[in-house]
Amino acid sequence: MEPFRLTATDVLKEIKAGKLTVEDYAKSLLSRIEKRDDQVKAWAYLNPELVIKQAKVLDQIPPDQRGPLHGVAVGVKDVIYTKDMPTEHNSPIYAGDAPQVDAASIMILRQAGALILGKTTTTEFAATVQGPKTHNPHAPFRTPGGSSSGSGAAVGDFQVPIALGTQTGGSTIRPGSFNGIYAMKPTWGAISREGQKIYSLILDTLGLYARSVEDLQLLAEVFALKDDEPSSTEGRIESGFTLKGAKFALVKTVVWPQVGPGTAAAMEKAVKLLEAHGAEVEEVALPREFDELPSWHRSIMSADGRVAFLPEHRVAKEILDESLVGHVENVKKISRADQLKAFDGIAALRPKIDELAGQYAAIITPSVPDEAPEGIERTGSAAFCSIWTALHVPVVNVPGFQGSNGLPIGLSLVAPRYRDQHLLAVCKEVGKVFGEEGGWKSSL
Amino acid sequence: MEPFRLTATDVLKEIKAGKLTVEDYAKSLLSRIEKRDDQVKAWAYLNPELVIKQAKVLDQIPPDQRGPLHGVAVGVKDVIYTKDMPTEHNSPIYAGDAPQVDAASIMILRQAGALILGKTTTTEFAATVQGPKTHNPHAPFRTPGGSSSGSGAAVGDFQVPIALGTQTGGSTIRPGSFNGIYAMKPTWGAISREGQKIYSLILDTLGLYARSVEDLQLLAEVFALKDDEPSSTEGRIESGFTLKGAKFALVKTVVWPQVGPGTAAAMEKAVKLLEAHGAEVEEVALPREFDELPSWHRSIMSADGRVAFLPEHRVAKEILDESLVGHVENVKKISRADQLKAFDGIAALRPKIDELAGQYAAIITPSVPDEAPEGIERTGSAAFCSIWTALHVPVVNVPGFQGSNGLPIGLSLVAPRYRDQHLLAVCKEVGKVFGEEGGWKSSL
Repeated sequence: MEPFRLTATDVLKEIKAGKLTVEDYAKSLLSRIEKRDDQVKAWAYLNPELVIKQAKVLDQIPPDQRGPLHGVAVGVKDVIYTKDMPTEHNSPIYAGDAPQVDAASIMILRQAGALILGKTTTTEFAATVQGPKTHNPHAPFRTPGGSSSGSGAAVGDFQVPIALGTQTGGSTIRPGSFNGIYAMKPTWGAISREGQKIYSLILDTLGLYARSVEDLQLLAEVFALKDDEPSSTEGRIESGFTLKGAKFALVKTVVWPQVGPGTAAAMEKAVKLLEAHGAEVEEVALPREFDELPSWHRSIMSADGRVAFLPEHRVAKEILDESLVGHVENVKKISRADQLKAFDGIAALRPKIDELAGQYAAIITPSVPDEAPEGIERTGSAAFCSIWTALHVPVVNVPGFQGSNGLPIGLSLVAPRYRDQHLLAVCKEVGKVFGEEGGWKSSL
Repeated sequence: MEPFRLTATDVLKEIKAGKLTVEDYAKSLLSRIEKRDDQVKAWAYLNPELVIKQAKVLDQIPPDQRGPLHGVAVGVKDVIYTKDMPTEHNSPIYAGDAPQVDAASIMILRQAGALILGKTTTTEFAATVQGPKTHNPHAPFRTPGGSSSGSGAAVGDFQVPIALGTQTGGSTIRPGSFNGIYAMKPTWGAISREGQKIYSLILDTLGLYARSVEDLQLLAEVFALKDDEPSSTEGRIESGFTLKGAKFALVKTVVWPQVGPGTAAAMEKAVKLLEAHGAEVEEVALPREFDELPSWHRSIMSADGRVAFLPEHRVAKEILDESLVGHVENVKKISRADQLKAFDGIAALRPKIDELAGQYAAIITPSVPDEAPEGIERTGSAAFCSIWTALHVPVVNVPGFQGSNGLPIGLSLVAPRYRDQHLLAVCKEVGKVFGEEGGWKSSL
């Protein structure tokens, strides 16, 4: 297998076994990118010379001093600071800007031995639905989703095994579904978001992309995601969860009327597959009090955007996206009372969703309405993601299904807050079934 | 009056009237600093050449293009990024570090015409109680408080009229009290905290220092702090609030046993003064459910510190403060269940404190146990501040009282969330009374 096709877990094995150098691995990725970039355009910044230089430095590290991600290449959404590369937020205000500082996530990744490959495209400040230049690798002229467009596309296209995204609405999970890959939004606050552009303090979450659950588990260890002990699925215990006898909740949510035929079929098929493997799936309606979540989430996005983009509004309003200008100018006329009602209302629901989700192995719910829509101008709907973002619960997009155009569709698995490791253990088993029997396989 | 003694409001008037250039003003401040720095040591970084260069640039701006803070000097706590100065967090890990980026607050200040004077001292990452090199300007060998030590001391010592601090426990309000100045912790989330070191996302707040309420009102306008309309005290309407007939709540809180004689006397005197001016003061006990706030606040600080300092722990644990190492290693063994109980418990109390505080012009409560303690090694207790920080409500330290050593003591005024402008209007009237009749006057 060509090195660029390897998952992070497999790359680590190859390097450890002395079968692959970081430099050769990097060259393989760079050649893949060179071949595909005209079509996919996933990168906002990529400097092959810098990549090779970093790879050579990593190769010089004695084997006993290597980190748990030694040589693993990572793509970084261009709203996250990297001290040796520009960070431009897809905003003309920050064209050429290069703060010489690493985000907390980048410090941790570098210290673990990761190879920071380059910066991936994003919508403006990860806060608009105007797509960047990036195309869906599975279907040109379709969106890869957003706002973590480049990260989703690059991982889906085998240009990098791991990438960082962010999520305030559906910016990590949606590209996960559209690009046919695993995407994880960990519990809010479980990974430091220091050094990434703020949109909403109470919503923003660092997101992770990979092509296998093992890779997400690797990252979860590096980022010290820890469930409470004792837990049968604590840490990397791989045998702790089996589908046989497990109980899942199928949750359609209040936004179910927005579902398309692709996701509706995927939900049905998921139930059949899980049942065929011995699991029980119960359809659960969220209590009525959860119905306000989509509108509360929108209020918080607007109210927090009013604060987050005030500096850019002051400095260069004329080149700031209209929707962000609207937030700052509070065109929706969200009062403080409305804002607080939303903020406190969401807060009160968090322990309730924990309790509900805690009764199941996981909640299964749509990631997106359907496969990636046509055009790259708009990044698609975050309707099915935003309520979980607001609730702070961990979410993983598990790929495996397909829509009427043969494009990938994933489903979201959700667990209570700080049950990230548990959720990954569940996704590992569910992912095998969806991946093998869901009907979609990557042809890239 | 020597220019360095002017408040920001007065500096603006002098400059507007053509009586003072920014350069001459800057020189006056620099000479004050030169004279006092050996004793106070408020600055982590100060480059007089850069200051004069900036001042000259500001003087060149045509009068009709000048911002609302044109020429006003601002000290910046050294956990907040400034693109032309180092940001070292009082941590050897970041010695010499100089990210070339402005925090959101700095972008807004610069755009308004402020003169960024230099970086002020802080405890390590604004997250420990180990004092920096700074002394209380009113009493050498006493702490100026922390973690915003240098900002509080510099404003108290007339080295700068305005400074930025941060607060996660009591890091803005406590130095306000110890240095005899106004300190404001606005509503959480009302001012962007982009570009300042994260300790706890749900607690960290940018703080403001000044020597007058008018100056805080000026800053509140620049940072677009807006209460809901209609409000009798909306914006800068100065005549909206009078003490006569106003009703205050005196709240001692569950940590009252930690009060010293100085603050206890200040509370008593405050009541008498307000009553003498026609206000009503009612002692109010917070409901029992608020009693857990101090312990919940500690749990959140530890749990969030576990995430916030993971990068530094990985990179250079041996030179990270022991308390921060303890957070990362979770030495207090705070479970996820405990953490969530605290997080959700605090969240549920926020609408309740809004309702209670909304029945009064303001809550009056201690800022600190007493005047600044001896020694500069420890920065004092945040016991009286942390519950309000957790509740997200705006707090202003109003100076005017003194302890048994003649050192300043302030009291905190508290309002419901997003009633920042209302709170300032109240503080303006209260501040006149406390300042004129409270018993303490600065002798600097």
